[in-house]
Amino acid sequence: MAPNQEQQSPGGNDKDLPLVLLHRSASTIDVSLFTSLLDKRVQFIDPLEDSDSSFSTLSGSVRIMLCVANHPVDSNTLDNYPSLECVVATSTGLDHIQLAECRRRGIRVTNVGDAFCDQVAEFAIGLLIDVLRRVSAADRFIRSGSWPVMGEFPLGFKVSGKRIGIIGLGNVGMRISRMLEAFGCSIAYNSRTRKPNVSYPYYADIQELAINSDVLFVCCAFSKDTRHLINKDVLKALGKKGVIVNIGRGAIIDEKELVGFLVRGDIGGAGLDVFENEPYVPTELYGLDNVVLSPHRAAAVPESFVHLQEIVIGNIEAFLSNKPLLFEVELQ
Amino acid sequence: MAPNQEQQSPGGNDKDLPLVLLHRSASTIDVSLFTSLLDKRVQFIDPLEDSDSSFSTLSGSVRIMLCVANHPVDSNTLDNYPSLECVVATSTGLDHIQLAECRRRGIRVTNVGDAFCDQVAEFAIGLLIDVLRRVSAADRFIRSGSWPVMGEFPLGFKVSGKRIGIIGLGNVGMRISRMLEAFGCSIAYNSRTRKPNVSYPYYADIQELAINSDVLFVCCAFSKDTRHLINKDVLKALGKKGVIVNIGRGAIIDEKELVGFLVRGDIGGAGLDVFENEPYVPTELYGLDNVVLSPHRAAAVPESFVHLQEIVIGNIEAFLSNKPLLFEVELQ
Repeated sequence: MAPNQEQQSPGGNDKDLPLVLLHRSASTIDVSLFTSLLDKRVQFIDPLEDSDSSFSTLSGSVRIMLCVANHPVDSNTLDNYPSLECVVATSTGLDHIQLAECRRRGIRVTNVGDAFCDQVAEFAIGLLIDVLRRVSAADRFIRSGSWPVMGEFPLGFKVSGKRIGIIGLGNVGMRISRMLEAFGCSIAYNSRTRKPNVSYPYYADIQELAINSDVLFVCCAFSKDTRHLINKDVLKALGKKGVIVNIGRGAIIDEKELVGFLVRGDIGGAGLDVFENEPYVPTELYGLDNVVLSPHRAAAVPESFVHLQEIVIGNIEAFLSNKPLLFEVELQ
Repeated sequence: MAPNQEQQSPGGNDKDLPLVLLHRSASTIDVSLFTSLLDKRVQFIDPLEDSDSSFSTLSGSVRIMLCVANHPVDSNTLDNYPSLECVVATSTGLDHIQLAECRRRGIRVTNVGDAFCDQVAEFAIGLLIDVLRRVSAADRFIRSGSWPVMGEFPLGFKVSGKRIGIIGLGNVGMRISRMLEAFGCSIAYNSRTRKPNVSYPYYADIQELAINSDVLFVCCAFSKDTRHLINKDVLKALGKKGVIVNIGRGAIIDEKELVGFLVRGDIGGAGLDVFENEPYVPTELYGLDNVVLSPHRAAAVPESFVHLQEIVIGNIEAFLSNKPLLFEVELQ
């Protein structure tokens, strides 16, 4: 019997299998999504489940870290795994991983590319329609029994014809744009640089984009450069009828300022899937009818997990067989 | 001074102006939208405001009825106005007007054509995204303070890629189709007859369409032929994961059956802007997270009223000057 087959037998000794660290918080998604399909090819080690002695015996030999959701990876984390060669992330955004530190140590990093783009874009549009046309507020109105008592529910605002400003014209921003063109909306965008082959008007300055938009979509990646990119000045430029939709990261908007603008009626409304201090949402927003709140679910559909599983397992297999990684992140 | 000018002077005697009947319920929209722009060209009479004697003196001479919202026009109504020549409706649907009776009496009828199509179509898509992606339910989850306590909110379902069945491929149905194509959905439809120049697959049988659809949109006109068109058999064909969106009229769906299917989980969800007995909504739906309820607001945006005003006033003016009516309804 070949050694390879012996390693894969259910009762076999798996101490020679490549070690993959499960790096996660206790509350993350069911990791069997990943472990079940790989359990004969790698050995998972898990600080949450393994005994301390077993874990510390093996941690020095870990070559791959499977970083689940947004569990932080900083230099202290990396110090624990001196043999680490590759971090396989299960997200598109990588703001929880210190990329510069990975680069310094020669550790490769992969994300899941555009796996979630369609679902995030459609959710963003759902938030916009909901805010402008007051869908959730109307639903509350009915469920509270108000329709026969109060009569007509207040008018909403038309989506069709709105001037849309996209902040971050990546995969998600581009899909949002294409969908909203079918609603008769006009599109303009801001990003670090003007995109070649994109005909939408480009604004290098976000305030200028806000002045010329009815709606801003926040679709850029979070980094120290985009933290509080949407500040008081941008919100003021967006104006009393302006609406903001955030499906990026909470801290791209100065949340305290946003809450103030919404409470005072200094902007028109907001659709928020992400917040600065999740799962905590500013309670001042709970009573507002021009706000739609969602618990970071823009990517959360069953199809996402199937796609996620394919990409993550594909990356671990590619790494182990020295093939090109899927969605390897440029660390330069 | 020409008689015409005399009639239009602010203090002039307006008893010779053409008479327009305001036909409305007490709770309808502000009719000044129409009356303010016409008050020097026609004389409005209003059974809700005029004295009985003044009204009965004039009702025999009414030539135009401005039928506001869905206030019923039947043969008894028409008997009161023997000189009536034209009913100007402020709606697209005309199920509140006995068209056969108008035809028999030689009374012309106008509606507002496609004035509301964009807003109704976008609202329909908002309902779909909301039902599938659980937007209103997620918003309730946050506002109830559940996120930090309960953790992850249940997954929704992706819109992109769904098979959409459109029932009634008129102006609204066509706009919904075009928008959802941009979401990567496939479209099929049912209508009385196959549409020339439409490449979407046609199903003459609604049950067949339901079997082959993940989502049904009800966009057809209401009539005795479409009452309870969506019955138990169609809902069964749509199946446990199927979603229905109704922005047509409540009674196109057998509401009692629909409630049963939703409560038992025999269909996947519903987005409902219209109901059989408005403003009463079956209370069994209030507790369901896979249902989004709206108080007949799909057309309710400020732009609708501007457009409505233009069309209605345009029709009254066209009638009075013997010009072709806008959106005259074929009564054959």
